[in-house]
Amino acid sequence: MPELRKDPILGRWVIISTERAQRPKDFFTSPEKSDAKNCPFCGGREGMTPPEIFAVRSNGSRPNSPGWEVRVVPNKFPALRIEGDLDKQGRGVYDRMNGIGAHEVIIETPDHTTCIEMQSRESVAQILEVYKLRLLDLSRDMRFKYILIFRNEGRAAGASLSHPHSQLIATPVTPKRVKEELTGAMEYFNYKDRCIYCDILRQEMEEHTRIVYENEQFVSFCPFASRFPFEIWVLPKKHHVDFHNFPSNEFPILADMMIVTLRKLGKALGHPQYNYILHTGPLRRPRKGYWTTIEQDFHWHIEIMPRLTQIAGFEWGTGFYINPTAPEEAAKYLRQVDL
Amino acid sequence: MPELRKDPILGRWVIISTERAQRPKDFFTSPEKSDAKNCPFCGGREGMTPPEIFAVRSNGSRPNSPGWEVRVVPNKFPALRIEGDLDKQGRGVYDRMNGIGAHEVIIETPDHTTCIEMQSRESVAQILEVYKLRLLDLSRDMRFKYILIFRNEGRAAGASLSHPHSQLIATPVTPKRVKEELTGAMEYFNYKDRCIYCDILRQEMEEHTRIVYENEQFVSFCPFASRFPFEIWVLPKKHHVDFHNFPSNEFPILADMMIVTLRKLGKALGHPQYNYILHTGPLRRPRKGYWTTIEQDFHWHIEIMPRLTQIAGFEWGTGFYINPTAPEEAAKYLRQVDL
Repeated sequence: MPELRKDPILGRWVIISTERAQRPKDFFTSPEKSDAKNCPFCGGREGMTPPEIFAVRSNGSRPNSPGWEVRVVPNKFPALRIEGDLDKQGRGVYDRMNGIGAHEVIIETPDHTTCIEMQSRESVAQILEVYKLRLLDLSRDMRFKYILIFRNEGRAAGASLSHPHSQLIATPVTPKRVKEELTGAMEYFNYKDRCIYCDILRQEMEEHTRIVYENEQFVSFCPFASRFPFEIWVLPKKHHVDFHNFPSNEFPILADMMIVTLRKLGKALGHPQYNYILHTGPLRRPRKGYWTTIEQDFHWHIEIMPRLTQIAGFEWGTGFYINPTAPEEAAKYLRQVDL
Repeated sequence: MPELRKDPILGRWVIISTERAQRPKDFFTSPEKSDAKNCPFCGGREGMTPPEIFAVRSNGSRPNSPGWEVRVVPNKFPALRIEGDLDKQGRGVYDRMNGIGAHEVIIETPDHTTCIEMQSRESVAQILEVYKLRLLDLSRDMRFKYILIFRNEGRAAGASLSHPHSQLIATPVTPKRVKEELTGAMEYFNYKDRCIYCDILRQEMEEHTRIVYENEQFVSFCPFASRFPFEIWVLPKKHHVDFHNFPSNEFPILADMMIVTLRKLGKALGHPQYNYILHTGPLRRPRKGYWTTIEQDFHWHIEIMPRLTQIAGFEWGTGFYINPTAPEEAAKYLRQVDL
């Protein structure tokens, strides 16, 4: 059983994932490169994954058989386990609980060789719809406080299989980074009575120096305080808190936004490895206290982080980032990329 | 001039380092591997660095000539610049200031081919003494709020030159990560009237499951909530806030601790790339408010982070870490390594 442990000074949680136990010798050789020959995510190899949780099967094919378009399965080596109780305990200065949660893989296509930005608008809209459905389903489990959807593209970005896929982790505590965003947005709202993300959007669209791409409903831009070169945020133009309440008929427009933005990034930088994360509102909203005003003060968004530079001692020691490319330069370059 | 920019939601600062400007094409090819032939840090090539700030020259040799044992020079491509004013400004929702600070390189030896854990106790004690002297000197500059000393070993850990060296950055704002540590330690002290690091040490020495090495004055251990496999913290056993006030006659004992711990790590894992950071108390202590009790509630320490796993979307999105090796396993393994 994985264990959640809390740093007693910083309050940050870590997952000690004994399921994935690694001993010193495991770090000497890097894991074998996956290829299409043995890929468990490919169409026709449904038996190689745990039984599916959900799949889009427009042709009415049976579960765990070929014929799907998007398929969701439990992670075979989950960082958190779905069965059990939290069993929170203190041991002296330390706090721990069982590593309860959900860890799912969203296989975006049966085709091993494509990538998300090369798929059609309709296919990408379908992937986004699956994100929404999984968020809706898991939000009913009262043990979970937050659900993160993320995508690791490339080995340096943490992907262990090259087949196009996203992941989802539901956690029994609100993660520190998410809490900080919620608190920051709440404090701004309390002071100004406006959503900070809406204010950022307004300023970005006026200044237009950091915009990458804009369509009817969405904007992508390199944030003012970008941590990484060519970091990009994607936001809906209209104020909207929860991804799982976002109208599905707008997903084709979001799909266009993701496809164009990721293609520009890929063309500008030679298909860099990257991570993207979806930050949506928290699942639980106490009537009083911390998140009272959350319905108004948060704004879902996607953060795309290309992995071009190394994180070094300075970043680990301070939480400060050194970014060698001004976001204005990066955005200008990306705007000019012809697709 | 580099620029400091604040994320308006998280309050996190980033350094947009225009001095190191990188355009898209720079990310396509990785920089050339440095080798001893052209290394500007080697003895005899003193003219290849900016003029030295400080050097240990027991033989009385002249500045910027050969004959030194440890040599401190300004970073040739500084993330922050020493000259100028902060010129703090707001622009709509955003805050920025000039990137004022110090960025120095501590060249640990004229010998290109050694590494810190293969040096003698006396040599390492001398490096630690230089850390202390630089902290003391820079703490007099009232523009600086914090000084971080750190070491990047290996290219994946962010080192651009392989010659043994540490770095120092003095920043005009207290970094987020440091503030969180100070706040966490203060809150614990306010509640318990005890230093949290002292309590952690007591529990670690009693349980003895996560201890790596112990000598007269210091302990190294894998922290309970380790973010990374084989993460190790080094603490003085006696309560001590500021590294720059630490008695110099104890540096040979700290040198022994660092040498033994790093040798164990190197032997266990085949000389992994790593970062270490020194967290000491902050430079400025207001009489009232935040850090009133800091003299008692902080405890300097060194965090060693081997770079064995990738940081992926989940970590970026949550601030949560997934660690595949229990610290108890890692410590047991390291204790058993014969040197």
